[in-house]
Amino acid sequence: MPAELHHDAPDFDIAFDALISAKREASEDVDASAAAIIADVRENGDAALIRLTEKFDRISLTPETLRVSEAEIDAAIAAVPAAERAALELAADRIAVFHARQRPEDARWTDDAGVEMGWRWTPVDAAGLYVPGGTASYPSSVLMNAIPARVAGAPRLAMVAPTPDGVVNPLVLLAARLSGVSEIYRIGGAQAIAALAYGTATIVPVDKIAGPGNAWVAAAKRRVFGHVGIDSVAGPSEVMVIADAGQDPELLAADLMAQAEHDVAAQSILVTDDAALAADTGRAVERLLRRMSRTAIAAASWRDNGALVVVRDLAQAAALANRAAPEHLELCVADPDALAAQVRHAGAIFLGPSTPEALGDYVAGPNHVLPTSRAARYASGLSVLDFMKRTTLLRATPAALAAIGPAAATLAASEGLEAHGLSVTRRLAAEPVA
Amino acid sequence: MPAELHHDAPDFDIAFDALISAKREASEDVDASAAAIIADVRENGDAALIRLTEKFDRISLTPETLRVSEAEIDAAIAAVPAAERAALELAADRIAVFHARQRPEDARWTDDAGVEMGWRWTPVDAAGLYVPGGTASYPSSVLMNAIPARVAGAPRLAMVAPTPDGVVNPLVLLAARLSGVSEIYRIGGAQAIAALAYGTATIVPVDKIAGPGNAWVAAAKRRVFGHVGIDSVAGPSEVMVIADAGQDPELLAADLMAQAEHDVAAQSILVTDDAALAADTGRAVERLLRRMSRTAIAAASWRDNGALVVVRDLAQAAALANRAAPEHLELCVADPDALAAQVRHAGAIFLGPSTPEALGDYVAGPNHVLPTSRAARYASGLSVLDFMKRTTLLRATPAALAAIGPAAATLAASEGLEAHGLSVTRRLAAEPVA
Repeated sequence: MPAELHHDAPDFDIAFDALISAKREASEDVDASAAAIIADVRENGDAALIRLTEKFDRISLTPETLRVSEAEIDAAIAAVPAAERAALELAADRIAVFHARQRPEDARWTDDAGVEMGWRWTPVDAAGLYVPGGTASYPSSVLMNAIPARVAGAPRLAMVAPTPDGVVNPLVLLAARLSGVSEIYRIGGAQAIAALAYGTATIVPVDKIAGPGNAWVAAAKRRVFGHVGIDSVAGPSEVMVIADAGQDPELLAADLMAQAEHDVAAQSILVTDDAALAADTGRAVERLLRRMSRTAIAAASWRDNGALVVVRDLAQAAALANRAAPEHLELCVADPDALAAQVRHAGAIFLGPSTPEALGDYVAGPNHVLPTSRAARYASGLSVLDFMKRTTLLRATPAALAAIGPAAATLAASEGLEAHGLSVTRRLAAEPVA
Repeated sequence: MPAELHHDAPDFDIAFDALISAKREASEDVDASAAAIIADVRENGDAALIRLTEKFDRISLTPETLRVSEAEIDAAIAAVPAAERAALELAADRIAVFHARQRPEDARWTDDAGVEMGWRWTPVDAAGLYVPGGTASYPSSVLMNAIPARVAGAPRLAMVAPTPDGVVNPLVLLAARLSGVSEIYRIGGAQAIAALAYGTATIVPVDKIAGPGNAWVAAAKRRVFGHVGIDSVAGPSEVMVIADAGQDPELLAADLMAQAEHDVAAQSILVTDDAALAADTGRAVERLLRRMSRTAIAAASWRDNGALVVVRDLAQAAALANRAAPEHLELCVADPDALAAQVRHAGAIFLGPSTPEALGDYVAGPNHVLPTSRAARYASGLSVLDFMKRTTLLRATPAALAAIGPAAATLAASEGLEAHGLSVTRRLAAEPVA
């Protein structure tokens, strides 16, 4: 049974904190193994990739077949049914339009002292995208990771995706094509992360790696961080649904199970000011679980991590959202804007009863890569900014240097940094201001 | 002697890559020690802080004196000489003005399908600022780390700064006051990072930690990452100075040594198309080293990590800058804008011969916390964005859901996620579109 919390209970705050702070993921200690694989790829390059891919994915590759050929991509894509192709194209277009609005603006101005300054944004030269294999090989994830990099202007997008037993998901290849991915390699695991970070004879290294993966991939990403940039290392997914009286329990149940079906470690929490709605939704979940194809996963997630929380009022619901900083927050309430205004911490907010999270997961436009495990207190979802960086610009005229340079020299002296001061004072002495 | 590289040499590219890729920092393996300290603070709270501070900083504290009192801050600040106070105030004002321009804009729009979307930026609830003790206790660093957090709108700024043997830098306290720091604790090392991340009876935990520190601090920041946000873990500082014929070797020497005097691991590289200028600058550095107060540090840095690089032309200089992605890039050339346009990767660019890096280190306005060790290929300097996060917003009307929902259901089916699809199709069935 999921946890049932009532605001009247004396231990309510403690129970809620325990609910949102529980470590839901078994942390496999694969760091040493990932480190060994990275060292192997750095030393042996393509040969290591081929050997490890044979071992883990049971396929024999050569340096020539590491990369998926254009002909192979063409053939796979041609077999995609029209409805799925159209849905993926709609999603790709909408995601691109949304992310295009995130392109940051350069700035440049000159202040009263005559100092010119500002900044300039530039894309990374090359982005690497990790796509998991097997059942977690999601075309939607390709779109969400690759399109921001393309919109950022990264000239090169290299994708890695393991193909266990040679099985390729044609929709993943189509998503890559629609996203502007420039090359695809059929490798995975820590070895693929190592290849992206350090390069091999066949694979040119990238500057930034994004995309979800298993424990080995996460450990490898942590290891190569600093040599290249990485996106955040995501934990299990989670949703908080806040609902008021009058909402449809069947819809709320579907929303909660849409999170629970991802993973036994996923978390679905209903928060409502209507105790009857909580009970009805609990029963609707039980009914739904009886007919779902992924019942084993969803039922375990709901039993171990799910919760029905009854609050005094919606203000208390907002306070709980701020404590949980949920990855996804659905506001299935009559006035979602009023409630959203009270929420400071959430990865994404879905406003009103006609906005299921799944709409945002696939086609609406916003990114579905979002901060988990309360990281929305300090972190944001994936965006165009993750594939760009800002260079600040500064220019002083001799007069401007004369105006503010002496203060710099004073501070340099106070910090005991003599050459810092000299680099200013020598210029002041050398350049009489007209 | 610093390295001397000439573009005519057959191994020029290899030598340059070795120069910029050399691991300049001895990586002390203090991770286990940092982990033990964090566990101690999590278990024993203030008592651990007091015990560890007695051990490392040789001062006896109580829970009441962990925090620096307002009276103590007032008294220290009152003793700051007027010139230093004025310089720090000028710097604080200019840094605040620069960073105010970085405040990001919210966005909200409705597209043709009737889908309303956008995003909203909010500050972190609390930022923690680490300030090193002893000779590396720099007031400028307080300004550069704290002011972006304040401009971001973070309601709470908690600073930690060790005071070995009880020595406090009054300028650091003044900088904290000018930056809007709300509380200061006289603790340092991994124990201070643990206190900021997990809290104690006296110290309320924060959401994001920024600021430079030694190897223990860096290891502790890596350890607490995920529980709180952290800024980047900076490596040794570096400057690349590109100069053309006619520049003043004495000024270039001061600029190179302003970097070298920070740390023996710092790196200063001159790149010029004028071999005579390279030689003259080398001699000017030798002269300057004879008279500097920090000669031991600067000379070791210059000898071990410095370089004079002679290039064919400025286009080659720009190409080297892009390979090095330097933290600081000075363009001491006749046409710095033309050269800057060719540079894709640098933390900060200083345009023209009247703009020494030290101006930006202290008073110009841009942040001096910048990506090191080639991280400017994928990372940016510290900014207001580091203390804010973005929540995406989405709202569909029933008609909008009818327009794009079926595509979401198609993609959910293709990924085998039944409840995702149901959360859309149940709504489509329930809500006939008018």
